Parts: sequence; structure tokens; C-alpha cells
Amino acid sequence: MRERLLSAEKVKAIEWRDGQLSLIDQRRLPLAEVWRHCDCAAAVATAIDEGVVRGAAAIGISAAYGLVLGLRARLAESSDWRAALEEDFQMLAAVCPAAVGPSGALSRMRERLERLKPGEDPYAVAEEQAASILASDREINLGMAQLGVEYIRSHQGNLQNLLTHCSSGALSTGGFGTALGVIRAAHLEGLVERVYVDETRPGLQGARLAAWELDAEGVPVTLNVDSCAAHLMKTRGITWVIVRAERIAANGDILGRIGTYQLSVLAMHHGARFMVVAPSTVIDLALESGEDIVIDEQAGSELLTLNGQRFAADVEAFNPAFDVTPADLIDVIVTEKGIVERPNAAKIEALMSRKRLH
Amino acid sequence: MRERLLSAEKVKAIEWRDGQLSLIDQRRLPLAEVWRHCDCAAAVATAIDEGVVRGAAAIGISAAYGLVLGLRARLAESSDWRAALEEDFQMLAAVCPAAVGPSGALSRMRERLERLKPGEDPYAVAEEQAASILASDREINLGMAQLGVEYIRSHQGNLQNLLTHCSSGALSTGGFGTALGVIRAAHLEGLVERVYVDETRPGLQGARLAAWELDAEGVPVTLNVDSCAAHLMKTRGITWVIVRAERIAANGDILGRIGTYQLSVLAMHHGARFMVVAPSTVIDLALESGEDIVIDEQAGSELLTLNGQRFAADVEAFNPAFDVTPADLIDVIVTEKGIVERPNAAKIEALMSRKRLH
Repeated sequence: MRERLLSAEKVKAIEWRDGQLSLIDQRRLPLAEVWRHCDCAAAVATAIDEGVVRGAAAIGISAAYGLVLGLRARLAESSDWRAALEEDFQMLAAVCPAAVGPSGALSRMRERLERLKPGEDPYAVAEEQAASILASDREINLGMAQLGVEYIRSHQGNLQNLLTHCSSGALSTGGFGTALGVIRAAHLEGLVERVYVDETRPGLQGARLAAWELDAEGVPVTLNVDSCAAHLMKTRGITWVIVRAERIAANGDILGRIGTYQLSVLAMHHGARFMVVAPSTVIDLALESGEDIVIDEQAGSELLTLNGQRFAADVEAFNPAFDVTPADLIDVIVTEKGIVERPNAAKIEALMSRKRLH
Repeated sequence: MRERLLSAEKVKAIEWRDGQLSLIDQRRLPLAEVWRHCDCAAAVATAIDEGVVRGAAAIGISAAYGLVLGLRARLAESSDWRAALEEDFQMLAAVCPAAVGPSGALSRMRERLERLKPGEDPYAVAEEQAASILASDREINLGMAQLGVEYIRSHQGNLQNLLTHCSSGALSTGGFGTALGVIRAAHLEGLVERVYVDETRPGLQGARLAAWELDAEGVPVTLNVDSCAAHLMKTRGITWVIVRAERIAANGDILGRIGTYQLSVLAMHHGARFMVVAPSTVIDLALESGEDIVIDEQAGSELLTLNGQRFAADVEAFNPAFDVTPADLIDVIVTEKGIVERPNAAKIEALMSRKRLH
């Protein structure tokens, strides 16, 4: 499975080659494949800030390489590279705050550079650390893809119709993706008849990115409006809804892209299974339940305009970016540490304690 | 209630004045209020064909006035106006086939002209018949608004948060609307805290038309993406989902705008009530159940482009215009003949038999 995923890999969002970071410009997809080449930390910060790269994992990896590029310049220009590099760190942290924290990519870069041993080449160490962050994300996704597809096969060995929401693929990670990672693995294993993709208003990540990525990988894909989900479940025999999570609470509630919650209700009504695929780093044991999450509200104007042109009535718009799906509507959470069926607090705690066993 | 609705009326889509038909151009809404003035049958047919006017009732009324305009020209140019008028009839029927049939507006026009008595002025008769078709549609909607709001009040006498889908208001009828008619009546009766409007992809009738119309009528309105419905029900205490139906089967299943079905599932899960508002003319006793309906599929390209510009990946798109909501997920169907709680075949038959009592 792992080898098959690696050899089938087509879509990548990030490439590091010959000391240069290349990012596919996701704002231009799916209409054009344009790569942004970054030779310095500022260029990476700008690319992140402009939305060239999206998805927490992909942004973190890009920021890590941004720091590698910053270090190269600082080493060339000054003997006190540590103080100078701090400026690059702050610049990158400002555009991706999520990369700073216990397991954040920028934090891991800084920690490694702080533990530099005598005689070690700082640039070589930084480059190796960024490569390790990228490789680790890819391994996490390969592991989840394998666990997810094994779980599907344990329920059905024949062709399935799947439904996904938003975009959670190679474009938003170091490779393969989370929910889309399981889906492409299922396709490679001959378990996929067709993948239906919600267009995912208002950002249209499903229409713009997930549909493009699945098509580019050769997966049979059909796009539909978000309000078609129940009709699809009733008339097209959807057996699995597979989505990612932004955060997971200690009790197994998840924060997902707006629309995820209603898919879980609809899946239950139609007897489809609901799978969440996310790395264990999004599990927050300090967060007792999903009800404690304050949900980001985006500008209402996003609902009134497209490509800068207003099409909707000039009224108040309610535009939450995410919603909460309660644990009791989730059949399974797939992480790189293992799977949690019918999640609850005890099972999530048991999953998270596994790290102490290794 | 009736007087209050009449005196509060602001939004109209159709006006007949001084022998001229004026239609608000719904393609330009909500960005501009542009009226199309029609002086001949061909102008009306073109306006219908171009989508200036939408909604079966509004289209039927427009076609009826189109025939009045046609008759005026035929009377002026020829003694055999009946044969000549048939050309106008066919031209109008071609752009609105639904207006031809047992209770269709064009059929009612033709029948009245066929029953012309000696000495009657054909033009005056035609103008009166078209006015009667318009007035009848308005009375149907006023009646449904009254029944619907009484039904809401029988459950709750305080402020309610409502959710609606697509656009079913004055713009698509002779006045007041179906689902929006009940909503504006509830507002006038002080029963509405806020109306949430699904944007209703792919046509965006909610964002473009329903939100505009409710706002113009002074109803507190908030726009949301279609995938936000369950989150709204959970967090904003939606008590009623109020929608229209395109068709109603003998067993009470309804054909509604795509997305209607999933709202009914979500309403049941959240304990919100689900109300369908539609004139009895959409009830088809020959249609045993909703499962017998072949659902129109629109071009998939509608999901890939906006204002002629493509934004989505170039993949297969599934674009059904409607879906079927089973009767057992409907709390009440409101028609001008009366209401049907928890619809089934016996209750629908009883409702339809009422016409024989008058």
C-alpha cells in the first residue's frame, strides 16, 4: 500500500530543490498550474500571506523552508546569524501563527538550531530538519491512508461511492493528504467506484482544489453542490463520508469546515459511515468538548461577492468558517497513531497515551 | 391579516398599466431594479425566454398578458383575429409549456375567448381574464399566508427564527409569494425574529432574490451558505423551515428545489418543524409518490462557471434541479384549500375533494 501510494503520487504542492522552494499557486488552480519560486525568507512569507499555499501542514512546511532560506542569507551576511535569524522567524511566525507552538514547524526548526553541536553546519542542519518535517508529514499521511483503507475494507471489499467535503489532499499537506489520502489509497486498492465532492461554499475548495487533485490522480470524481448531499446519499448509494478535522476535542467532537456537521447528520439518517481523518497533532486534550470552541466568523462579504463582483443582495450574512460535529455522529477517527471507533473521551485518551509506549 | 398584507405590499414583479406589461428584470436583481416594458406578444415571449421573469405563476401571468397584447394587435390588423391569435398562443406556449394544460394561464385565456358571447369586446374580455388570473394567484397566496401564519401561531406565539431555501416570493408569483408569503405574514404578525436564507446553489436564488425581497419588505434577514443549515438549527434555534414545492404527489411527497430534502432531514434531527407552502394546482393525484418523478438534470457546466467565468476543476458535475422530500419528513403542507398535517394519501385526497363541496 505504502509503495503503491508513493509510486502513484502525482500531485505535489511543495518542492525543495537546489536550495530553492517552489510552491504551486493554489489561487490560480484549477485554471492554471503556476509555480512560485522562493529564494529568500521574505518571498516565502509573502507567498503564505497571499494564500499561494494553504492548509496548516503545507504552510508549516513552507515556513520551515522559509527559515532555511533565511538562515542561508544570514550566514552569508553576518557572524551573529542567530540574532538576525530571529527576525526571519518573527516574520514567518506573523503569517503562520499555527507553526509556532509545541509541535509547530517553526518551533521545531528553532529548537533544532538551538541544540546545534560544535562542528555542525547550521545550514545543513536546518535543511535536514525542514526535510524531516516534510518527510514526517508525508509519513503521517501515508500511515493514515493505510489505516483508513484497511478500515473501509474491514466493512466492504467491493466498490464504494464516497463523498468528501472541502479539500484535504496533497495540496494542503506535504503529500497525499488526510481525507483525500484515504480516498486515493482506497482508489488504488480498487475500492472506489466514484468520489462525489461537495463544492464547499463559500471558499469552493472542493470545486477548485479537491476535484482538481482527484481528477489529476485519476480518481473518478463528480462535483456537486453542497445541498445535494442527502439526495446523493439516497439515490447514489454513498456508503462513506470522509472528511478532515481542523481540531479534535478530548471527547472526540471535531471542528470541521462549515458543512461537515450536517453531513454527519445526513450520513446517520442514510446509514452511510462517517470517517474523520486527521493527524493526532490536531487533538487537543485541554479542550473538553467541541462546545467549548469559539468558531471563527469570516467576513459576510465573502458570501455576497465572487471574484470581486457582488451578486447577492446587500444583506447581513452569517459566515462561520467551521462547525462542530459531535463525537456521537462520528463512526471513526483515523490518526497516524491508530483509529478510534465511536470516539469518546476514554478512547481519545487511550489513543494519545500510546506515544508514551514507544 | 389580509388587509395588513395588502397595505404592507412593496415588492411586485409584474405590472399591467395603460395597456402595457412591465416586468422587473430578475436577472439584474439584486444589483439593479430594471423594468422591461412589453407592448406586444413577442416582447413578452422574449422576456420569458430570456429569464427576465421566473417562477411558474409569474411566468403564467406574464404569458396571459402577452396574449392580451397579441390580441390587441391582431384585432387591429385582421378580421380573422382568432386564427392570427393562435400564432401568438403557440409562440407564448413554446416559452412556457407549463401555462398550457388543465389550469394553465394560457389555456384559461383561450377557453375564455372561445366562450365569447355576441356583443362582447374580445379585448376587454381578454384583459379581464388576465386580470382575473393575476388576482386569483394573489388571492391564493394571501389565503396560504393566512393559513400558514395561523398554523405557526397555534404552535408558538412568540418570536421565531425561520429558515427558507430558494426564492418563492412576490418575484415568482402575482404577489406575496408562497413560502415567502407565509414568512412576510408571520413578520407582520410579530412572530419573526430573523429569517435565515440559504443562498441556494447553483442558481443562488436565495442570495439574489429571496434575500433582496425580504430585505425590501423590511423583514430581518440573514444570508448563509447552504451547508450552514444544520449549524444554524443547532446554534440559532431555528423552529421552522418554510419552503415551496414544485410538485406534490398523491401521497404527500414533494418535489422541491435541490437541497429541500436535506433540510427536511436536518429539521427532523433538530426538532424544527418543516412547512411546505404551495397552491393546490401543483398537487398531482396521478403521481402516486415522489419516487415516480424523473428529476431534471441541468447542465453540469452551471456548477463550474459563474458569470461565464470558470472557477471549478473541469470534471464531471452532477446537477439535479430538484429533489424529493418524502411525506413522512413534512410536518405540514399549506395550500389555499387548507392545510394538511403529516401528509399522506388519504389526507391529500380529502383536501383535493374539497373543491367538489363548493
